[in-house]
Amino acid sequence: MANIYPFAGAAIQSDSTCKFSVWAPFRKQVSLSIIAPQPQIHPMQPDDKGYWHTSVEGLSSGTQYKYVLDEEVTLPDPASRYQPEGVHGPSAVVDSNFEWTDDSWTGLDMSELIIYELHTGTFSGTHNFQGVIDKLDHLRSLGITAIEILPVGQFPGDRNWGYDGVYPFAVQNSYGGVNGLKALVNAAHQHGIAVILDVIYNHLGPEGNYFSQYGPWFTDKYKTPWGPALNFDDAWCDAVRAYFIQNALMWLDEFHIDGLRMDAVHAIWDCGANHFTAELSELVDALQATSGRKKFLIAEIDLNSPRYIMPREKGGYGMHGQWVDEFHHALHSLLTGEVNGYYADFGGLTPLAKSFQDSYVFTGAYSDVRKRHFGASPGDLPYHQFVVFAQNHDQIGNRMLGDRLTTQVSFEAQKLAAATVLLSPHIPLLFMGEEYGETKPFQFFTSHSDKDLIAAVTNGRREEFASFAWEGEVPEPQEITTFDNSTLSWETQTETGAALIELYRFLIAFRRTRQAMRNTTRDSVKVLIPQAEEQLLLVERSGGDDRLLILFNFSDHVVPYQYTGPGTLQKKFDSSAAIWHGPGTLAPDEATTSS
Amino acid sequence: MANIYPFAGAAIQSDSTCKFSVWAPFRKQVSLSIIAPQPQIHPMQPDDKGYWHTSVEGLSSGTQYKYVLDEEVTLPDPASRYQPEGVHGPSAVVDSNFEWTDDSWTGLDMSELIIYELHTGTFSGTHNFQGVIDKLDHLRSLGITAIEILPVGQFPGDRNWGYDGVYPFAVQNSYGGVNGLKALVNAAHQHGIAVILDVIYNHLGPEGNYFSQYGPWFTDKYKTPWGPALNFDDAWCDAVRAYFIQNALMWLDEFHIDGLRMDAVHAIWDCGANHFTAELSELVDALQATSGRKKFLIAEIDLNSPRYIMPREKGGYGMHGQWVDEFHHALHSLLTGEVNGYYADFGGLTPLAKSFQDSYVFTGAYSDVRKRHFGASPGDLPYHQFVVFAQNHDQIGNRMLGDRLTTQVSFEAQKLAAATVLLSPHIPLLFMGEEYGETKPFQFFTSHSDKDLIAAVTNGRREEFASFAWEGEVPEPQEITTFDNSTLSWETQTETGAALIELYRFLIAFRRTRQAMRNTTRDSVKVLIPQAEEQLLLVERSGGDDRLLILFNFSDHVVPYQYTGPGTLQKKFDSSAAIWHGPGTLAPDEATTSS
Repeated sequence: MANIYPFAGAAIQSDSTCKFSVWAPFRKQVSLSIIAPQPQIHPMQPDDKGYWHTSVEGLSSGTQYKYVLDEEVTLPDPASRYQPEGVHGPSAVVDSNFEWTDDSWTGLDMSELIIYELHTGTFSGTHNFQGVIDKLDHLRSLGITAIEILPVGQFPGDRNWGYDGVYPFAVQNSYGGVNGLKALVNAAHQHGIAVILDVIYNHLGPEGNYFSQYGPWFTDKYKTPWGPALNFDDAWCDAVRAYFIQNALMWLDEFHIDGLRMDAVHAIWDCGANHFTAELSELVDALQATSGRKKFLIAEIDLNSPRYIMPREKGGYGMHGQWVDEFHHALHSLLTGEVNGYYADFGGLTPLAKSFQDSYVFTGAYSDVRKRHFGASPGDLPYHQFVVFAQNHDQIGNRMLGDRLTTQVSFEAQKLAAATVLLSPHIPLLFMGEEYGETKPFQFFTSHSDKDLIAAVTNGRREEFASFAWEGEVPEPQEITTFDNSTLSWETQTETGAALIELYRFLIAFRRTRQAMRNTTRDSVKVLIPQAEEQLLLVERSGGDDRLLILFNFSDHVVPYQYTGPGTLQKKFDSSAAIWHGPGTLAPDEATTSS
Repeated sequence: MANIYPFAGAAIQSDSTCKFSVWAPFRKQVSLSIIAPQPQIHPMQPDDKGYWHTSVEGLSSGTQYKYVLDEEVTLPDPASRYQPEGVHGPSAVVDSNFEWTDDSWTGLDMSELIIYELHTGTFSGTHNFQGVIDKLDHLRSLGITAIEILPVGQFPGDRNWGYDGVYPFAVQNSYGGVNGLKALVNAAHQHGIAVILDVIYNHLGPEGNYFSQYGPWFTDKYKTPWGPALNFDDAWCDAVRAYFIQNALMWLDEFHIDGLRMDAVHAIWDCGANHFTAELSELVDALQATSGRKKFLIAEIDLNSPRYIMPREKGGYGMHGQWVDEFHHALHSLLTGEVNGYYADFGGLTPLAKSFQDSYVFTGAYSDVRKRHFGASPGDLPYHQFVVFAQNHDQIGNRMLGDRLTTQVSFEAQKLAAATVLLSPHIPLLFMGEEYGETKPFQFFTSHSDKDLIAAVTNGRREEFASFAWEGEVPEPQEITTFDNSTLSWETQTETGAALIELYRFLIAFRRTRQAMRNTTRDSVKVLIPQAEEQLLLVERSGGDDRLLILFNFSDHVVPYQYTGPGTLQKKFDSSAAIWHGPGTLAPDEATTSS
């Protein structure tokens, strides 16, 4: 592997030298500039693939350095493992020596995942990894099996969702750096919780982005909404591919991360013979085999193309799962009645029924929003390769006010949303605070230092919301109040909050224990709309001898339903019940066709 | 099918009305302007997908028309079936009523193809389809089973390779138009010869290109070397896809064309769930089933990605074959010693041995020219899905002087080149005139009328040749002498020419009759370099009980070879023999290991 994927970055070796390698194929001269503790300059030697190398003795962890390119510019390392002073400052050598105590952890299968998405900065009042560790007991008691952490690569300042990161190898200093993240992963594993890390391989952030000074990181063959496309298939792409492969394997191997959620995979433009995601998934599968721990890749993707998650032997790219935004859109539009912007393709019960049954809403039909026929059928891929949610960072935070579903619909509807996600055969994902009905928003916040960029971001947000015709003012991303407003309150002990937590706990436990719920094969789920005018969705699930009939009532009133199937129905759960702070249950404890 | 793929163009219906449909989704008003024989204006009605329609009674074939868009511009029909006055003139209604007499033709399997590529304008002194018909007897006697015709879509003027066409549905007027092409196909089929048409779905030519006035034909997501990328996956792409699908099916169905050679398929940018080529190949397979005639799609592609020609059920796009430029480059570089430009990746015997065995030269190795690891293995795809050649229009015409191999290497080497192609397990393609050793060049010629474009083309040619460091002057594409210089001489009766024709005839017959030659499975070919320093390539082929040992001597001298295998070798062919105008054979008629 070493020959195909050259190393980039700085690493202390077993012989106590520190090896430095950086890719700068068009530069005539590259030097290592040690900045602290003792300033030194070391010329570097090029190899035939455009990497420059040197080894230095006597350096310890924390040594700060930059690279000098052609005596013109002195810049941080694109593969920096730590940026103690932020995106513009020197890089630092890291030798973490973290003492792992998760030896018995063997990971989780995709089908076991109950995902809890969180943003480290706003999850707790300490705004760092320790704040997450402090809540692992709570998550564990809820039944959560995996936390998914928004990107942690060093970004400008200390307030950012993480998608503006420019050092994919450097754990954000304000979150706790390398050992902070390792401590979180270690603690999560001790709680029986897997860790999924959100990584961005489709673009690099705008501020502190010195990549083009180093080499052909970008290609002009393609465009992305976030700037130039990273070079995955053009001349010199090997080094770009190797860099992100090294990054993925660093998280999965060195950091014991269980899975990666790969941001906007459709914008990883690669039309070559071996798609980057296929090359990566093969290596991840190999790592799973050698490490004895389950590892997986989950795509965020806007294509409804099952190719990305089909097995490689069937011509797929072999990723293990993907997000399904359409399930959210169908559910959200149905609950809120919103039909602006991209919700124009949804509304009513039919899209939700389609997504519940077929994962995708669009499997080849015409989309009025996209102005094209869109998508393909997922075929026989199991449901557990698809992740669904009623809320997530994007679907909340990309609303103008960042308002949560909690503040848009009734408490009964919130419970209905939770049940729709948790009783679906897909993998459920919750967004932090959802479990207790957090009412504070999750807004878009930044702490850039570049004035033009700050203005551009503010204007960009305003334009983005035009098609939604929302009322009110766009919160200013750069203001610290926007960040503070988005930090969880943890007011879990309200009357509805406590009931909601219990409801999530019940549904998760139900999901994990019932055989019909654990079955994720395509033939185990049957979705019907028995009375369209009554907004009733009926789902039959089966597994072994177990059989479930689930009725989702999306109307605003009681809907009578007459069971006409075989056997006797036994009521296991009714979200209207008083125990869930509802108006009271009307359904009988048992029902048969003849009753 | 009609609902998914709306019709574009003009077509006389069975009720003798003429239906007109044109896609212009952003226009507020579109009218049909009949220009001749009787000027009339007919307002058109839009549908919900952006097509405008009208039907007019009493029009006959030959009626000339344009469309008036928002009363701003009056333009020819993008789906014009005929451009009697060239690319800028009116479009014409066509009702060809051609009388087909090829009812008994059922087409050919890919594995039966012996392809002869020709450019209609320079193939004969009449510069049209009739000139090709006149030579069908010659081609048939040679053993050719398919002619492949450079693009015939209307292009500017009457001299062009065809890749600057802007009316993919209109057969070039100077070649003979619709019925001229149908007559050629009909005659070819009567000669037992299939017809492959070169079509361009990756770009549209620069002059006479009014597409952007009609709608979002192009996307800025991608770039091509020939201008903006056609819109195969962006908003509104359905109409663009439907247009090219209609085009492909028109040739294969109405024109009885057997197969399409699709130009530069790698530049058909489509990252959606259903790649355009997969959508098309499914329709072509369906047409094969309903028509009872073999139909196929052959990709010209620069990716070494077997995905395009893998079966759809294995995750491929289901095209039937592809060109392999690398086989040519390996052979050409070996024969000529040229190692400039893209030949820098080749040279020596090894690349040819690799391509002979694995079809591609690069199946994942690093390419110095491309500056990346490149390609993937073709796996178990049969050899007959790969088309190889020692010469073709591009490989000759994209040389600065358009000089053929004939004028670059000795007569003995020409025979060696022919044998390498024809005795390979891949599908052979010859370039017109190659069979008699034509010495006239095939140069790049145009007859544009736009002065800026003429200058741009000339400059572009000069830049293109920079990396080859060729000496001499670039022939002026626009000069008629360039076209005349490129027209075949048909001087077949020179001493070497006559011998060469016989050699091609012998090798084709040998290829078509020997069981070992007809076997195209991956396990039937074994390629060895027994004595690298002697430039000797040894190929074993087998099929049933038949077994062949082929020795290719790429050195400039006699190389002794001692047979060490089982059984007795019987000599079947020696290109050095006097019968092939060679220096005389030295090999014995029989050889055994003990001899």
